[in-house]
Amino acid sequence: MTYCVAMCLDEGLVCLSDSRTNAGVDHINTFRKMTVFERPGDRVLVLMSAGNLAITQSVINILREHAAVQDRQSLWNAPTLFECARLVGDTIRRVHQRDAEALQQFGVDFNASFILCGQIADEPPRLFNIYAAGNFIEASSDTPYFQIGESKYGKPILDRVVSSRTSLDEAAKCALISMDSTIRSNLSVGLPLDLLIYKRDGLKVSRHVSIDWDNPYFDMIHGQWGASLRRVFAELPDPDWTTWPQEIEPRPRIQEGSGVPLREPAAGDVSAD
Amino acid sequence: MTYCVAMCLDEGLVCLSDSRTNAGVDHINTFRKMTVFERPGDRVLVLMSAGNLAITQSVINILREHAAVQDRQSLWNAPTLFECARLVGDTIRRVHQRDAEALQQFGVDFNASFILCGQIADEPPRLFNIYAAGNFIEASSDTPYFQIGESKYGKPILDRVVSSRTSLDEAAKCALISMDSTIRSNLSVGLPLDLLIYKRDGLKVSRHVSIDWDNPYFDMIHGQWGASLRRVFAELPDPDWTTWPQEIEPRPRIQEGSGVPLREPAAGDVSAD
Repeated sequence: MTYCVAMCLDEGLVCLSDSRTNAGVDHINTFRKMTVFERPGDRVLVLMSAGNLAITQSVINILREHAAVQDRQSLWNAPTLFECARLVGDTIRRVHQRDAEALQQFGVDFNASFILCGQIADEPPRLFNIYAAGNFIEASSDTPYFQIGESKYGKPILDRVVSSRTSLDEAAKCALISMDSTIRSNLSVGLPLDLLIYKRDGLKVSRHVSIDWDNPYFDMIHGQWGASLRRVFAELPDPDWTTWPQEIEPRPRIQEGSGVPLREPAAGDVSAD
Repeated sequence: MTYCVAMCLDEGLVCLSDSRTNAGVDHINTFRKMTVFERPGDRVLVLMSAGNLAITQSVINILREHAAVQDRQSLWNAPTLFECARLVGDTIRRVHQRDAEALQQFGVDFNASFILCGQIADEPPRLFNIYAAGNFIEASSDTPYFQIGESKYGKPILDRVVSSRTSLDEAAKCALISMDSTIRSNLSVGLPLDLLIYKRDGLKVSRHVSIDWDNPYFDMIHGQWGASLRRVFAELPDPDWTTWPQEIEPRPRIQEGSGVPLREPAAGDVSAD
């Protein structure tokens, strides 16, 4: 699996991806999931991928090959991010046309998803989530982030912290915490990480760093966040059972007996010890 | 979906389940997922279920019908929790034998999982996770909890807090936080909740409460935990980019060009803005 997250904020874009791929737990490799197309002053495009590695590599290779041919329609000359997302979607469909049937014969799903974000010229920064079918959705100020891959472990902290007004540095911190929670709970996500920060209207990559275990900031996040969670957990009061409402009708539990009608548990039950 | 969690701790057992079922977002119902078999002084068994509701209800109904017949092998006379888990597994297999083919004709997977925990007579409290195939695993002091259903959102806090030495009240608090994170991130998990606490060697249910939005403790968890997370998030320092190692070799990004060989992004890149 993989975990990638991207946020489209008032100040710009933050993207974070891991680099673990696995085909079974004994076949783990490191492949970067983030590809950056940059022409300073004109456009920055960040493409992140999750799913079957052979499929996602095919898509990225075709996009690159087209991008290397001058005058061919490509990520370099598409006039808008929307057109770029359509190009990526069309490329996924090409790979599907070529490979899906053969994969199906081996019982392998056509499993791939992409995040595309960036800014082109006068457009605002935009963020798209592109599905295996080649269709896609765009983020908005109400839903300013997308995740692909092993997304559930790291979603609660994003839901609680991120809004379109979040600063780029805070968003980077939140993305790293989300990644740390995912890595902790799921073996198939792992370091090194690729972190990219793009400041709105800069039309060049602001910061693009590789993060491994020797990175002191991620190490601090890894150690401190868990400790902070345990601290606020300890600060929250334990339930004080004496204050729990006692008027709730006790729920019957199943008692032994032959021929005795067995009643479904009904709503509402407090039985004190 | 559903979310259920059970913990087997030195002090006893804590079980928490939600009550939402859904077949599509426009077909949401409330069904309890926790069934308790209790014969004070002899045994307490807690069975929680996730998956296809028709399957899990069939399993529970058969277990109840057998339990209602005296002298029949059932959850009331099985001598150990292990035998009880085998009974549940055998019952799942019976339902599979009867229903799986018909379900398959409608493209419906045979999807069901169960948590069984409790204590019988002189045995210590035990906790089992029973799969759709009828096989099962048992918790240990290294892995003292199991989850079924929509388990990923609520796993990070369990991973960080719960060990077999956690007290029952702390474990109940942690289970409720885990549930709150899940409810917040996933529509298919919802109140009311069933919370059951069992004190080791009590051989009767210590506490069995139904929790709805009018429960002040859960309301406190719901409000305070999010606020606490945001507070410790704000306390963690943002990345101070000036301290990030600069010696890492810059990673080439893809530049426009025809015929220019396109290089894979290599490990390690810092480009400052």
